[in-house]
Formats: sequence, structure tokens, C-alpha cells
Amino acid sequence: MSDMQIVNVELPERSYPIYIGKGLLDNAELLRSHVKGKQVAIVTNDTIAPLYLDKVKAAFSGYTLNQIILPDGEVHKTMGTASLIFDQLLQNRHNRSTTLIALGGGVVGDITGFTAACYQRGVNFIQLPTTLLAQVDSSVGGKTGVNHPMGKNMIGAFYQPQAVIADTATLDSLPQRELASGFAEVLKYGLIADSEFLEWIEKNHSAVLAKDPDALTYAIRKSCENKASVVAQDERESGLRAILNLGHTFGHAIETFTGYREWLHGEAVAVGMVMAADMSCRLGWITSKHAQLVRNLVEKSGLPSIPPANLLPEHFMELMAVDKKVLDGRLRLVLLKKLGEAVINSDFSSSALNETLAAGDLLCRQNTST
Amino acid sequence: MSDMQIVNVELPERSYPIYIGKGLLDNAELLRSHVKGKQVAIVTNDTIAPLYLDKVKAAFSGYTLNQIILPDGEVHKTMGTASLIFDQLLQNRHNRSTTLIALGGGVVGDITGFTAACYQRGVNFIQLPTTLLAQVDSSVGGKTGVNHPMGKNMIGAFYQPQAVIADTATLDSLPQRELASGFAEVLKYGLIADSEFLEWIEKNHSAVLAKDPDALTYAIRKSCENKASVVAQDERESGLRAILNLGHTFGHAIETFTGYREWLHGEAVAVGMVMAADMSCRLGWITSKHAQLVRNLVEKSGLPSIPPANLLPEHFMELMAVDKKVLDGRLRLVLLKKLGEAVINSDFSSSALNETLAAGDLLCRQNTST
Repeated sequence: MSDMQIVNVELPERSYPIYIGKGLLDNAELLRSHVKGKQVAIVTNDTIAPLYLDKVKAAFSGYTLNQIILPDGEVHKTMGTASLIFDQLLQNRHNRSTTLIALGGGVVGDITGFTAACYQRGVNFIQLPTTLLAQVDSSVGGKTGVNHPMGKNMIGAFYQPQAVIADTATLDSLPQRELASGFAEVLKYGLIADSEFLEWIEKNHSAVLAKDPDALTYAIRKSCENKASVVAQDERESGLRAILNLGHTFGHAIETFTGYREWLHGEAVAVGMVMAADMSCRLGWITSKHAQLVRNLVEKSGLPSIPPANLLPEHFMELMAVDKKVLDGRLRLVLLKKLGEAVINSDFSSSALNETLAAGDLLCRQNTST
Repeated sequence: MSDMQIVNVELPERSYPIYIGKGLLDNAELLRSHVKGKQVAIVTNDTIAPLYLDKVKAAFSGYTLNQIILPDGEVHKTMGTASLIFDQLLQNRHNRSTTLIALGGGVVGDITGFTAACYQRGVNFIQLPTTLLAQVDSSVGGKTGVNHPMGKNMIGAFYQPQAVIADTATLDSLPQRELASGFAEVLKYGLIADSEFLEWIEKNHSAVLAKDPDALTYAIRKSCENKASVVAQDERESGLRAILNLGHTFGHAIETFTGYREWLHGEAVAVGMVMAADMSCRLGWITSKHAQLVRNLVEKSGLPSIPPANLLPEHFMELMAVDKKVLDGRLRLVLLKKLGEAVINSDFSSSALNETLAAGDLLCRQNTST
């Protein structure tokens, strides 16, 4: 086991640790240390269960333990699945002192967190993220929820886990496409808030994507530090926290349009970030060289950089109009003031947005099209 | 309009007012003062809508307004109904700055509060309670939720409204049976925490039940003050707040057993309080005279004092085992140390509980049966 790194998420009411390291799921003492009662329910999916469920169960011998194995996939992140979890918890007499354990990627984490938030008006939960996306983003910061046919994460809660335990060894079994999807969020932190980290990413993206242990641990730690810092300043997204959604408004439109089936979240976000950079360039905020750098990094990471061909500008506008970031009828977008600094803006020229949506190649040629 | 009374609920994060008075729904300025954005969605039911919906809508002319009219009844306080509200909010493009307005009794308030807590991870809401039960209890304190076939309020959130506006004029249209049901909760505050108020109730219960305006306003204010004081000390029910559940563990078993159809909440709680008093007497904590006083007050208020004949002790035990107050396998009950002082206890002799459940007449004859 390599050295364990700890990032603390400091919140007004309560702080909690993120542990990052190789082999942490074998550390039964660590797993048990964040469970208060004698009941646990492990929620996982049918891809992850055969790989790691026994390991986690072994840590809780002597506890009242139930396992809830969901079908894998974002398409199952619904109120219906949440209801199935509630049924299981009630049938097995889980009480207010139970702890839910989310073992899996972002879907498992989001839905488990949401059911923990609502079950008997709130019980404890722990995140054991097994994808890069979950380890750097969705397991950290307390956003939980499920999708609605009309929009992603439309039903949910801000609800913080007792701890996040990110075992990088679980990434060994992660398909390359999903690793790249998670890497989109790593890239995001560099773009929105950390130009030094962005430079590190430019030099080390191949090492991370090749699962070099040190590069991976560093990328996860820096990502979590950046996210923890933003969340500590604005837990409930009354302002600053929205910068974490760089690329997400465009990305959610892509995911909703394709029914959460074809595109991975990070893939949609990657396109969204390229679009946000393109639009920031059209607004004259970043240079076309920098917009191109974003696109190149996305493409070199094996991520898509253009939206689906049949997703027309009018579809985008329609889908983005129900985004949670819409405020009193005005669409707010996260854009780039420069590389390493995002802003939330609802004051943009609509022509810049229209041009970005209409652009076939998403390669802003500065000062020619605006 | 009689004088408006204000009770403040003081919470660590945020305080909010409860307004009590006759004709408050006609005070458009008051209603508007607690809405921040330009969107409102009024959630009500098909009994209340014909009576007061137009009045509330009139206060919000110029706002984007939607109305969601639910079928009346506790049987509709389900995740399915919550989903219908989410659908409506999304279809009508309600965003994060919307305000949900709960116009109705406890069911409307609980489900509206829960949907407000979960819609886009939390939007503002206002309670306009139109039953005595809602005005003295369910609209105050932030407990929101829906029922599950296996138990009442099993899915929910602690989520506080921006304000509670209790118009006592709405009680004019309230059936006497429902008034009595609400009165059970008024009586509860006297029993658990306020012997002075209990004495007032002994003298004035007829006036309250005859809808004497002054008696009604006083009873509501004292109830809200008692509840606000308990909630301020323990918002999330880690301890003290559970005393508000006097009679509720027995009562919930009755409601679940009868499918939320035959019994009103306050009726079930009334029986539960008589059972709790009976058990407290069998434990030797209160005198049989006091247990009898509780039963007499319940009966004089037109409330039932014995559980359904076909609800056997073993059914009670089964149903109470999934109660939210079960902690690590031990049932906790709210019992009376004396009149005006409740305690939460999991350490009782099981024979006292068995005797109470088995007792046909629920009239503890002190020191003869234990």
C-alpha cells in the first residue's frame, strides 16, 4: 500500500475527510472507523459487486449488513431506483442509526447519498468511489440526487457523507473510456481555478491516463483539494460553487438529449468545456490559442470535442432552459476569464452563444466571427 | 381582523416567523413579503382549492404562478404524488428561485415541504396551514416527508419554511372531527412540557372546540411557542425533540394498520397518548388519577381513547418495530414522568408495555397490575 493522502472538506457544520490511496478497501479498520451504529447497507451495482463487494463486506463482519445491488448505468439513477432502496431498507428494518455505504461510481454515490438524505429524514453514509469521476468529483461535496426525464439531477439534496475513501486500486479495473471521462473533471479543476495544476496536467496527462500510480494519486488529490476549497466557501451553491459546473450546462443538454445512454458524463462535460472555451474566446475573454489548447487537451485525452450532429442549436436552447442554473429566466453559464479562472455569467451577448451552438468545428477564430 | 400574533422559530442557521390571526390570507402584502423570486407554485388539495385558492392567487398577480391541486387525504402522501409535483414544476420551468406555497393541512404541508427540499436540491417554501392540526403542529418545525407502505413519514427531510401564516378564519370551514383531531396535538403540548397550559386546556377545551376566536388563537400560539422552543433546542431530533412524539409511536401503528384511511392523525395520537399515560401509570410514574385525567380530556374532546379492536398486541409490536424511534433494536417510547413533563425511554419493563397493549379498557388501576 502506498502512502495514504488525506484532504479535509471543511464545512460550517461539520468537516469530513477524503482518504486517497492504493488498497484502502483492504483497510477494514479505516472503513469501520466511520460507521457509528451496528447496521450497514452497502449499495453497489452489478459491475462493481463481483469485484469489491466481498472485500467491503469482510470489514463489517459482526454488523447487521444488507447489500443492495443496482443495475449499472446512469439510466437507473431515478426516483424509481431510490424507491427500491427505501423498500429494501425498510424491509430489513434499518433504523435512524444505520449507515449506507456507496460502493461504486457517481451514479451509485449520488443515489445512495440521496436515499441517505431522505431515509427517515437523514441517516449517515460513506462514499467508496470506484471510478476516477467519482473519486475526483461526484463523491466529494455533498451533491446528491436522481435524474428526471426532463433534466439531470433535478431531484436531490445537499447532504454530506461521513467520509470519502478513494481506493486508487479500484481504477485498475476501470475501462479506459471511463478513465478518460473522469479525467475531464480533473482537467476542469485546472481550467477553473488552478493554472499551476493545469500546467502539470499538460505535462502529465499521458501518465494519468496510463494509470501511473503517483500521477493518479497526485491528480486525485489536487482535484479534491480544489473541489473542497470551493465547497467550503459555498456549500449550497449560492454563488461561487457554480464554477464547478464548467461545461456542465452544455454537457447536461447532451446527456438529456441522448437519454443518458450513449454518452458518459465526462464525455459530455468535455464537449461542454470545449464549447465554453469557444464561447469565452468569441466573447474576447481568452485567446483562440487558449481555446485551442482546451480542445487539444480534451482530444489528446481521448475525449470527444464536438456535440452529437443531430443536437441542433434550438435543441440546446430548449434543454438548457430547464437547467438548475437558470435564474429568473436568464441562462447562466460558467465561462473562462482566462485559463485557471472561471466566472459565472448571465450577461453574455447571445450572439456568442448562438455562434458557439451553430459552430460545426468549435474552433473559435478570434476576432473574425464576433 | 383581530390582532396578529407572531411566534419566532429560532434556529442556528436561520429563524422564521409564524403569524397567527384571523383573516391573514387576505393580507396580500404579508403573503408576498416572504416570496423572494418571481415564480410561485401553490400546492393545495381539492377540498381547500374551492375555498381559498383564489384568495391566495390574488396576492400573486403579476407573478409566474402555477397551481397544483392534489386529491385530498393522507393516502395520497406518497412518493408518487411527490413525483407528480416534480413533473409539474419541471414542465412549468420552475427554477431554483421559485417558491412553493403549501395551502392546506398537514398532508399538503408535509409533501410540499418535501418536494421543496428536493426540487433542484432545495427551493423556498411557505406554509399556509388551514387545519388546526397543521397550524399547531405539522407546519411548524421543518419535518417534511411522505409515507411508505411500511411506515409513516419514512421518507423525508428536515427543511424549514420561510414563514408559516396561520389564518384562523380557515378553521371556520373545518369539520368538527378534524378540529378535534388537531386539538389532540394542542393537548399534547400541555402534557409534555407545559402544566400551566394543561390547566388552561382543562378549563377552556370546550371554548376551543366551539371555535371561540380568542381561545383558538391562544391555544395555537401556546402550542407554537412550545413547539418552537423544543425545535430550537433540537432541530434534527437527536434527543429532546422526540418528546413531541408523545402518543405517536402507538398512533403511527394504528394509522399504518388501518392504511391511513379510517383514522385521522390526531385521533390515532389521542389513543396513543392515552396508552402512553396508561403505561406511565403502570410504570408507577403518574397516578391512576392523572392517567384517567388524560383519558377524560381526550374523550371530552370527542376523540377516541381505545385502539381498533382488531389491532392485536402482536400487530402493535410488529408495526412499532419499524418506527423511526427504534435505536439499535430497542424501541423507544415517549412517556410521562408527570403531567407536563415527558421523557424518552427505552428502558421500560416490557411487561408494562405488554399490559398496556393487552388492556381492553386502558384504565390503569395503579399498583394492582404491575
